[in-house]
Amino acid sequence: MPILNKDMTLCISLSGRPSNIGTRFHNYLYEELGLNFVYKAFSTDDLAGAITGVRALGIRGCSVSMPFKEDVMAMVDEIEFSAKAIDSVNTIVNASGLLVASNTDFEAIATLIERHQLDPGSSVLVRGSGGMAKAVVAAFHEAGFRDLTVLARNEGSGQALADKYGYGFAGVDPAPGHKILVNVTPLGMVGAQSEEFSFSAEQIGLARSVFDVVAFPSETPLIRVARSAGKQVITGAEVIALQAAAQFEKYTGQALSEEQVRRASEFSRKS
Amino acid sequence: MPILNKDMTLCISLSGRPSNIGTRFHNYLYEELGLNFVYKAFSTDDLAGAITGVRALGIRGCSVSMPFKEDVMAMVDEIEFSAKAIDSVNTIVNASGLLVASNTDFEAIATLIERHQLDPGSSVLVRGSGGMAKAVVAAFHEAGFRDLTVLARNEGSGQALADKYGYGFAGVDPAPGHKILVNVTPLGMVGAQSEEFSFSAEQIGLARSVFDVVAFPSETPLIRVARSAGKQVITGAEVIALQAAAQFEKYTGQALSEEQVRRASEFSRKS
Repeated sequence: MPILNKDMTLCISLSGRPSNIGTRFHNYLYEELGLNFVYKAFSTDDLAGAITGVRALGIRGCSVSMPFKEDVMAMVDEIEFSAKAIDSVNTIVNASGLLVASNTDFEAIATLIERHQLDPGSSVLVRGSGGMAKAVVAAFHEAGFRDLTVLARNEGSGQALADKYGYGFAGVDPAPGHKILVNVTPLGMVGAQSEEFSFSAEQIGLARSVFDVVAFPSETPLIRVARSAGKQVITGAEVIALQAAAQFEKYTGQALSEEQVRRASEFSRKS
Repeated sequence: MPILNKDMTLCISLSGRPSNIGTRFHNYLYEELGLNFVYKAFSTDDLAGAITGVRALGIRGCSVSMPFKEDVMAMVDEIEFSAKAIDSVNTIVNASGLLVASNTDFEAIATLIERHQLDPGSSVLVRGSGGMAKAVVAAFHEAGFRDLTVLARNEGSGQALADKYGYGFAGVDPAPGHKILVNVTPLGMVGAQSEEFSFSAEQIGLARSVFDVVAFPSETPLIRVARSAGKQVITGAEVIALQAAAQFEKYTGQALSEEQVRRASEFSRKS
């Protein structure tokens, strides 16, 4: 019988509405790797108090979700580039009392751009202007892409995001021809608009690569169509797996194989 | 494979030097009873921050050990009689944000006085003047005992403890004849003075009941001698089991059978 012990290292998450995914993902791998760690999701109505508790109790890692990703920046000691670039934290590592914040969504997207060898000379069309779109646009900018257009219904946030990097903004579908299409809206996600496409058939037809950040399901209608048309595809499942693996490594010091991440992700979604 | 989930209720302990006993005791019973709880020991160098974390993270229960038992009183919302009587907290229950402090050592001793039907008309000799001695003397006073002598080498704390209740104080062995003897010093505990008796053979011979609060081992030389002389004996193991069961019930709402406490205690001491 496995029983917890006093020396276990605790990692937590803080979010407005905790899901079971992180708790299952991390604990599954702790057990598989024989790590003396334990992970549990929390919510709070006192973010500063919770972070004070992270320090005082020596909690090693703290994953941060909505609505705390921005407010928590004032409560940590160091903010890495990945979080500073998008004013959004999703990961805090407690390094012997020093709280270091980062954003593994940004890191994951940067890694995928590199891993899939996307060409910085290509034109990019990013649809969306929310928190994840900020991470996407910042990562493309950091990777050296200069020709990028933000497509968003919300003109305020869309224009602001484009302006930050000197990129173009479009409130409605621009003329097709972009080589890389990135969807960062909920279109295609399980739910009401699950069959709606974020890009026109013509846009998809002319593109070389299609990147859909939606992860549930990972095979969105957009990904399916792009895949069957022979396009290079990058899925939201890849983003989620990479960012979770990055958090895991920051907390435990242990790198994960793709196979380990795949199995843990599968397990984490079952409940 | 049992995997933690987001809805688990967390209970913790705070102490200067955590042992594994509480963590093993509580988690053993959570598993046996199928409770969706998890318990882990912590230390801290920021007690106020840790208590802030208990509130902000909704940690349900917090056991408190040395050196935090007094300082924590200023950080809770309500202090029950058991803790107020001895200026010492060992249990905090987080009742939907309201932190209620109590002392289950006091409660355990009060229960044992009642369960073993000690006669309030008897004379009592208590040896010791530390934190646990305060709980013992307060519990005898609360139970209506009027003839009690505090025996302690430390005249300052011993005299103060006696004075608080109008009891007698003795710096050296008083004349034998006390009907109830209570040892609350480390004499008889595993270690350097494990064979030293806290009471003279004559005192033991004239007594009716011998209560040894030392719990490691529970069969101290004092208990062994008293038992073989046919005295009524009360052991430190009973105190520990009762106080742990009381904490468990305060945190979970579940009462424990003596058999459950016995097995969990045995398990908790194995590591």
